[in-house]
Formats: sequence, C-alpha cells, structure tokens
Amino acid sequence: MNRKEIAAAIDQLAGKKIDMQGKDFFLTWEKTRDELDATFLVADILRAMRENNVSPRIWDSGIAVSNFRDNSTRTRFSYSSACNLLGLYVQDLDEGKSQIAHGETVRETANMISFLTEAIGIRDDMYLGEGDKYQREVAKSLDEGVAAGVLPSRPTVVNLQSDIDHPTQSMADFLHLAHHFGGLDKLAGKKIAMTWAYSPSYGKPLSVPQGIVGLASRFGMEVALAYPEGYDLIPEVVELSRQQAEASGGLLTVGHSMDSAFAGADIVYPKSWAPFDVMKQRVPLLHAGDQAGLKDLEKRCLANNAKYKDWECTEEKMKLTKEGKALYMHCLPADITDVSCAAGEVAASVFDRYRDDTYLEASFKPYIIAAMIVLGKFKNPAELLKNAVQKGTSRTLGL
Amino acid sequence: MNRKEIAAAIDQLAGKKIDMQGKDFFLTWEKTRDELDATFLVADILRAMRENNVSPRIWDSGIAVSNFRDNSTRTRFSYSSACNLLGLYVQDLDEGKSQIAHGETVRETANMISFLTEAIGIRDDMYLGEGDKYQREVAKSLDEGVAAGVLPSRPTVVNLQSDIDHPTQSMADFLHLAHHFGGLDKLAGKKIAMTWAYSPSYGKPLSVPQGIVGLASRFGMEVALAYPEGYDLIPEVVELSRQQAEASGGLLTVGHSMDSAFAGADIVYPKSWAPFDVMKQRVPLLHAGDQAGLKDLEKRCLANNAKYKDWECTEEKMKLTKEGKALYMHCLPADITDVSCAAGEVAASVFDRYRDDTYLEASFKPYIIAAMIVLGKFKNPAELLKNAVQKGTSRTLGL
Amino acid sequence: MNRKEIAAAIDQLAGKKIDMQGKDFFLTWEKTRDELDATFLVADILRAMRENNVSPRIWDSGIAVSNFRDNSTRTRFSYSSACNLLGLYVQDLDEGKSQIAHGETVRETANMISFLTEAIGIRDDMYLGEGDKYQREVAKSLDEGVAAGVLPSRPTVVNLQSDIDHPTQSMADFLHLAHHFGGLDKLAGKKIAMTWAYSPSYGKPLSVPQGIVGLASRFGMEVALAYPEGYDLIPEVVELSRQQAEASGGLLTVGHSMDSAFAGADIVYPKSWAPFDVMKQRVPLLHAGDQAGLKDLEKRCLANNAKYKDWECTEEKMKLTKEGKALYMHCLPADITDVSCAAGEVAASVFDRYRDDTYLEASFKPYIIAAMIVLGKFKNPAELLKNAVQKGTSRTLGL
Repeated sequence: MNRKEIAAAIDQLAGKKIDMQGKDFFLTWEKTRDELDATFLVADILRAMRENNVSPRIWDSGIAVSNFRDNSTRTRFSYSSACNLLGLYVQDLDEGKSQIAHGETVRETANMISFLTEAIGIRDDMYLGEGDKYQREVAKSLDEGVAAGVLPSRPTVVNLQSDIDHPTQSMADFLHLAHHFGGLDKLAGKKIAMTWAYSPSYGKPLSVPQGIVGLASRFGMEVALAYPEGYDLIPEVVELSRQQAEASGGLLTVGHSMDSAFAGADIVYPKSWAPFDVMKQRVPLLHAGDQAGLKDLEKRCLANNAKYKDWECTEEKMKLTKEGKALYMHCLPADITDVSCAAGEVAASVFDRYRDDTYLEASFKPYIIAAMIVLGKFKNPAELLKNAVQKGTSRTLGL
Repeated sequence: MNRKEIAAAIDQLAGKKIDMQGKDFFLTWEKTRDELDATFLVADILRAMRENNVSPRIWDSGIAVSNFRDNSTRTRFSYSSACNLLGLYVQDLDEGKSQIAHGETVRETANMISFLTEAIGIRDDMYLGEGDKYQREVAKSLDEGVAAGVLPSRPTVVNLQSDIDHPTQSMADFLHLAHHFGGLDKLAGKKIAMTWAYSPSYGKPLSVPQGIVGLASRFGMEVALAYPEGYDLIPEVVELSRQQAEASGGLLTVGHSMDSAFAGADIVYPKSWAPFDVMKQRVPLLHAGDQAGLKDLEKRCLANNAKYKDWECTEEKMKLTKEGKALYMHCLPADITDVSCAAGEVAASVFDRYRDDTYLEASFKPYIIAAMIVLGKFKNPAELLKNAVQKGTSRTLGL
Repeated sequence: MNRKEIAAAIDQLAGKKIDMQGKDFFLTWEKTRDELDATFLVADILRAMRENNVSPRIWDSGIAVSNFRDNSTRTRFSYSSACNLLGLYVQDLDEGKSQIAHGETVRETANMISFLTEAIGIRDDMYLGEGDKYQREVAKSLDEGVAAGVLPSRPTVVNLQSDIDHPTQSMADFLHLAHHFGGLDKLAGKKIAMTWAYSPSYGKPLSVPQGIVGLASRFGMEVALAYPEGYDLIPEVVELSRQQAEASGGLLTVGHSMDSAFAGADIVYPKSWAPFDVMKQRVPLLHAGDQAGLKDLEKRCLANNAKYKDWECTEEKMKLTKEGKALYMHCLPADITDVSCAAGEVAASVFDRYRDDTYLEASFKPYIIAAMIVLGKFKNPAELLKNAVQKGTSRTLGL
C-alpha cells in the first residue's frame, strides 16, 4: 500500500458503521461484519503507515497493561509491539499464575492499574468457564471506575486468548487469508478444514479451533470441522457458528474424518486440542492443586490421544485437498513429526513447504491487536488516522 | 482545571521558595511547607495538563530505575505511570530480595545503573532501621559519582516506602484531602484519627501511620493517634510530629482508645501495623533466615493481635465521628470483614460506602511521584511547565 | 564536544569506508579498522548530542529484544539505556536459562519476535563452543526471514557477550583509553598487560581477556598476555591476535609471569578467568545437569586457583608499571581483597585509587551499544546523525 492507497483505505474505513469505542474485544461473534472489516482495515492501514515510514504513534504517553495468566512469548511480543507502535508503554501485571482473583480484588486491582492506562490485554485460557468470565469482570470494574469518576477514561480490554475465543489469532489468520486470496470477499465458497491433529502433549486450549470456526462462519465459507469422537468443542460455540455459516451463505459441517474434511479444501488448519470434557474435568483439579489427579487425567488423555496418531497432516492428506495445494495454517508452534517430536500434528515436508506462510500469518497479529486498541479507544478512527498521516512524523529518521 | 487555571497554578508555583533540585524525597518532614505545597501544585498541574490533552512529557528519552525490595503491584504501577508520563523508560533493578547490599556494592551499582538515569525509585520497608539508611547510601553514592564526573547529572531518589516514611502515599492522601475539602488551608482545625486496626495478618510496616502523623501535623490539624498498648510507632517520629503539630497551630494526641480517636473526627484512617518492638525483633531473624524464629514471632504476634479484634472500623464507630460522616481513608488493600477475611480492619458496609473515595485517594499517587521527580531534577519547575504548556504537544492525536 | 565538534565528528564519520548495514556485531576482529573507528565515532557523537541536550532519538517506535541467557544487571542496564536513547522499547526474551534452543525453535522464535524489531542483543557466554554459534544461528534465521518477505527489515544482532568475544566491553574499554590518552592514535607503542588474577570464585568466562587481546592487537600496542600455566585462552583467538598485533606494527607476547607483564606497562587489566580446558569440561556437565560432576570440577579448579593467590594486583605489582602509574582497568565487579573477599584480584588501595576510572570506563558501554545498533541498521549513519542534529529535538525541556 502506498500513501494514496492508505488514504483510500481510510476513506473506506470512514464508511463502516461501527460502535466500538468504550467497548472491548472479547469474541469475534459479538462484533458486526462492519466492525470486523474495520478491524482488518485499521490493521492494514497501520502496517502500511509503518512500511511507508509514517509513524502510527497515537499517544505521546500512556500505559498498556499486559496480564498473562499463562506463559506466552509470542503473544507477549505481539502485544508489546502493537502497544509500542501506538506509543504505549507496557507494564506487566503479574497476579500469580495459580490464583484467580475475584470480586473485590478484581474490582480494586482493575482500578488501581488504570489511572493512566489506555489498554489492558488479558490472556487467560487454561480454565474452562473462567477466562472469558474474568475478562468481563475486569471490564465491568472499569465501567464502574469511569462512572464513579475514578478513571479519566475507559481502558479497552483486549482478549489475548480466553477459554472461548482467541480473536487476535483468528483475526490475524483471516487477515492473512485476505492477503493470500486477494480480499475477504474472495473467501465465500472456499472450503476451510479446521481439524484436530495428534500431538504428544495434552491440554491445549479450545480457543483456537473455536475462534476459527466462529470467524470462518462469517464469510460464506464451507467450514469443515473434524475431530475424533469425543474431542468436542464447547457445544454453544459450534451451534452459533453453524447459524452464522448459514446466515452468511456458507455451511458448517462437523465430522470425524480428517480425510473428508481435507477433501477439496482450499485451506487446512490441523491442530491439537484437548476434549471439552477433559478441560471441564481439569478445572477443579487445577484449583485444588491436585497433582496426582492431574497426572492421572493426563495419562488417560495421552493414552486416548495415542489412538489417533493417524490424524497427522501428511503429504498424503494434503493430496486430498484442492489440487493438492490447500493453504496450510497453524497458530505456531506446531508439533512437527521427526523435528519437534516423534509423531505430531504435521509432517516435516509439509511444514517445510508452508513455513514462510505460517510466519507471514503470524506477522499480522501485532497490527490486529493495535487495531483493536485504536477502535476500542477512539470514536472516529478514520479521522484519527487521517490526522496521523497528515502529521506525518517519520517512524525513523534514517533509511 | 482548564488551561487558564493551569497557567494560574504555574504562577503560584513560581512564587514558592524551594530548594529541591539535586535532592531526594525521603521524608516529608525534611521538606519545608513551601516545598510540600510545590509538590502538590506540580502534581495538580501535571494531572490537569494530561486531562486537557497537553502532554506533560519532559524527556524525549531517559531511564527511571525501579528498585523494589518488596513486592508491590500498585506502587509499581504508580511509579511506571509517573515515569512514562514524563517520558522516562522504567528499568527494574532486581538485586535479590533477601540480600541487602552495602558499601562497595551499593556505590558501584548506584553508578553503573545511572549513566543515563534521571530518577531512582526505591521501596525498602521490611527491615526496621535499614530502608531509609539504604536509600541515603544510594544517594551518597550518586553524589560521589557526579562529583567524580562519572555521572552526567544527578538522578533524583524517590522514597517509594521506607521503614520510616511513605511520602508518596501520605502526599497522595493529602492531595486527596485538599481536593475533598476544597484546599489544604481548609484542613486547619480538622480532626484526623490515625488508628491501629485489627488484621488477621501481621508485620505490616509502620511507614504508613508514621507518614500520616508526620504529614498531618504540618497543617494545623488535631491528629489523634491511637493504638492498643504496645503497638508503638518509632518514638522519634511521634515526638517530631508532636512538635510539628504545635508549631503549625495544631495538636497531636496519643491514646489507646479507638472510640476517643474517632469521636468528632473529620477523617479516619484505621489501619493495621506491627508493633515497633516486633519489627525490631524481626530484623535479626530475617537476616539470619531463621524461619522457626519468624514463625514463633508471628504466632505470638497474631495471638496478641487477636485480643484487639474490636479495633475495627464498624458502622458504630463511624457514628462517633463528626455528624457520623467522617471521610474514611485507607492506602489499600484493606482487610474487609466478611469480604477479604472473617474479621478485619473495616466493616464491609463502611468500606462499600467509601470505596470510590479510596480509589480516588489512590489516583493521586502517580502524579505525586511525577511531581517529586520533576522537582528533584529541575531548577525552575514553573518555567519548565510553562514551556511544556506552550509547546502544547497533544498527549493523544485522537479524542 | 560542543555542537561544532559534533559536526566535525560527523564529517569524519562520513569519510570512513564501512559496510555494516544489515550485518551484526559478533567479534571485533571481523570488523575493519575503519568500521571500529566508525563505531567509536558514533558512540562519541551520540554521547555528545545527549550532553548538548540534542536528542539522539532515531526511532519514534520500535522494539529492541534483550536475550540474556546469563544474568547481568549491568549489561542489561547498558543495553536498555542504549535502546531507549535511540527510541526503542526493550522487550525481554526469556527462553529459560538452561535450555539451549536449536534449529526449528531458533528459526521460528527469531522470526516471531522480529516483526517490528530493530535490534536483538544476546548474551550467551557460559557454554564454550555455543554462544557465538547460537548468535549466528539467530542471524541466519533473520536473513531467511527477510529473504522470505516475512520481516520488513533486518534486525541487527549485537553480541552482548559470547563464549568468544565481549565486544561491547572491549570497545567501551578502548573508547575509555582513547579519551584517557587523547586519541586512539596515541595507543601505538603503549604496553597493555592483560593478565589473569586470582579470585575465590571459578568459571568466569574467557570472553573478556579474549576480547581485550583481540582488540588491543589492532592498534600497534605491545600486548602482554600473562596467566599461570594451564589457564590458556582459546588458542585460535590468541594466534589471530598475534597476527593482528604484527600487522598493526605491535606485538603480542604470552607469558606466565604477572611481574613481567606488568613491567613498564601503560595499562594493566588483571582479571580472573577459568582455564579453556575447564570451560570445555564444563559444557557436557552443564548440559547433563550433572551437579555432582560440576561440584567436583569446581573443587578441583578452586584448589588449583589457590596455588596462584599471588596473582593479585597489589601496590607492589603496580610499582613495576610505567612510572608506577599504569592505568588500571576492570570490567567490574572486581574481587577486591578485604572488601568483597579475603583474597582477590586487586588490593583495596589500588582499586580505591582507580575506582572512578573504572566507573568512567563502564560509562562508555551504553554509547558503544547504541553505535553498534545505528551502524547495523542504517546505510548512511553520517547523514542520519546530521539529520538528527538539524532536527534538534531537545532531550529534555528543562535545564
């Protein structure tokens, strides 16, 4: 995108009907299609500004809180990069990984860390039934803080992965698809296979596959969700996605054959996750710190997983896809057979061929996060970005 | 405050006789009344600038060191927010929590971390007789570094809580009072009850109550300090506060009845602390890492504390205060009966009524810290702020 | 340096023939003399700009990754200060101290953390044969990321200490020498004694002495390397330094007498290190986590070290140097006899006399690091700095 194209994209953004200011980004399916499109547009514009050496710095000072209840090097970097791009300083909030704060503590902490804060990114995906709930509790506390005149403005909460959705991942994935296929409008009619894949580990969260089916079902695509019997996702998310798929002129199928899902697919997203049922059983064990119980559950799960080692994205499986050339996607890191493990989600030769694609896929995440922050904070993002372009501060003095 | 009022406040600041540049902020009672007033003024001006979207960024680059020898999420955020507001990047110095560096190590480290450093915030409150001493040792090393031509300028040291005083807390508390009552000059004649309160924990530092009596005694107030027999503060601090109270036209009383302290009070500050005597006993045990000794001391203290469960800020106690409507204050987090513990410092209904007030109270801390840094670094803070206002950089490009 | 002198230094820089953009700074001996001189010049210019209140901020936003595989408060501060000075935000990459990532993991992580990254500082000095290798593996991954269009630009890798060289230390040391003696051209013919010294600890890396002989041998100096029998450095580094010394019109001698090395020296650098042979034996033990084996090795080493307690930089030894007034150098912290230990590298009275010199020595490191980043990133650093000076943003609004 050159500067003329940036201006055109800003005009396009101005035409979107959105109501995002003062709100948070928890689940893609709470946002309208125009709001999703605005998010993609802002991400593209910010990236293009940076690439044209126009600083997308919106703030001269300001705090962005990073609250990672699980470890994550990559999401941490994406979030830091996004915040820094906009001019925010990232301050980590480390509440202790095992404790889940509730009630008074959440309310108080949310206010205490927000006096000069513009954005709060939260990753909390390990406890089924709790991550999303916690994020909303923080948001409610912030609303109360603003209402009471304690906070000068409402920090926007960005879901950096919850038990339900992983919108910064799925939105980055789809911005990648938009670039790969020449526009989001090119996705209608395309088939995406979101399938389970074997991994020697267990307990991977459900939010990635849920995020993908929850978002893919907005674009008139054929979404083929497939997993071994018993590896269900949260039923409500699948049902909602089915309805969304139909409403968008697409289709959601749920099956138990990787081959059927791959057959004729334009895009494949093979990825391990733990069954919904197991994730439910884990929560009380984690809360109780019941190491023996967790060990036992892990053992049973790994034994069960081992029955499905053939759920691997091999060359043979890839041949089933559209002209054998489906786009392979992964949120990374992938479990690569003979590279990171003896048997995993994907064959080394397949991963090798698509490595750069998966890296490109990841490269959109900082811009998606930055877009979510901009849209959560400013009433008129088009005017804001126009101002920033006109101001024209160089991101770097050198070339 | 609008822009006109900001200009007026800057003029007022210009009229204060201060000698703070190149110095540190350790104890409020080392500062003149004009210097305290200047600190309040700068804090108000910085806050108003930000609220009027005028960036209070004074530095384009620069380091602020954060040295927390005790954990503290909130003070950490206050310090980061303050430094970021002024344009400084916070770099944590983690020397290890149990070791106390001395002599050569302090001298060397103080210089090594200060080549491009503008401010050093230190929190060191657990060891009676050591926190303040350590901060002064750092300051002395910095003086030597400047004298030797090793450091280009003198970083200012801000006491983020020592064994003696907690000036960022007490100053924020009193800026809150100034806003609440319509000016610091309105405090003369008012009664503030700084009282001990029961908590199921033990070992809370003395610096909060000491900071409050040490500062409240500057404004012509009636300061009613009350605690169970044996829960003394550092005697020298109380004696000095008594003298200050008299000099300012006020009064300091020390008693052992919460009811008497609360009677007719305009402000109440009920808060747990460990007896001076216990804090003294703890130091050698902490240094020796004597877990058994610490356990034993804790046990004895908690047993003693338990005799004073009636030292709780209940609705009944609040009724004793001026028209039953004294302003409740707390540095947070408070031990709230039936919320955070079975029996604590304050009844839930009392805390509920004053929750927003305590949050507002806390909201002044980042600005107080920023003011201390500005005053410790710049000779003519009024001119500096005038320049910043005239420059008029927007804190954010959007609205 | 005043502004006129800054302009002159920039002109001088423009005359240097360098090819550093898009490259990394691993070993000083991979750089031409012009490239070393350019690094010294940029460091001096950046320092002078800051001291003249001209902001050397080159970036409005951007990430600098800090990857410390060993603990280091001081290098961490130097790196942060350097990055902040240039406008970069430091994000720590903590991969876990004991694991050494390889292959796929390095490739992927290097890309994932670099989408908006300008510089990557790596310290990895504990494992002989691995630190330098790892840094080059990261660099290769970045090259591939740029070639694949995944990364918008090539982050420059700065070696913050490897198993082979410690260029930010040695370059800072020599910038200190340039200032001390009135120019790098004054070093030709001077004698520098890089000697082993006794320390009650063991396992200190070889990269400091190797870095010093590897760099000192570029300036026509007499480099006297001395250590007890068996305390060899990596043979290839010594051989290469010998050749460099000859090529530059100087001389490298290797001996086993501290007295001979000190005799007539202009500069002495007495410093403990572990024998090459021991460092080699340690690697498999460290990888295996063989605590008993490590304990045993340490015991044998300390016993061996103890034979050489007379390798101490005493007043007597200092008397052997040129007029008894050689400049004492150390990378700090030094093991000071009767201060930090019972018997160490240097006598207290010697260290006392040179303390400020060693602090000044250290003060150049942030600027050297910043210079390495600038030169690794920008094609025309002279023009860049000219622009920054012309832009003339104040580093601080106050005085």
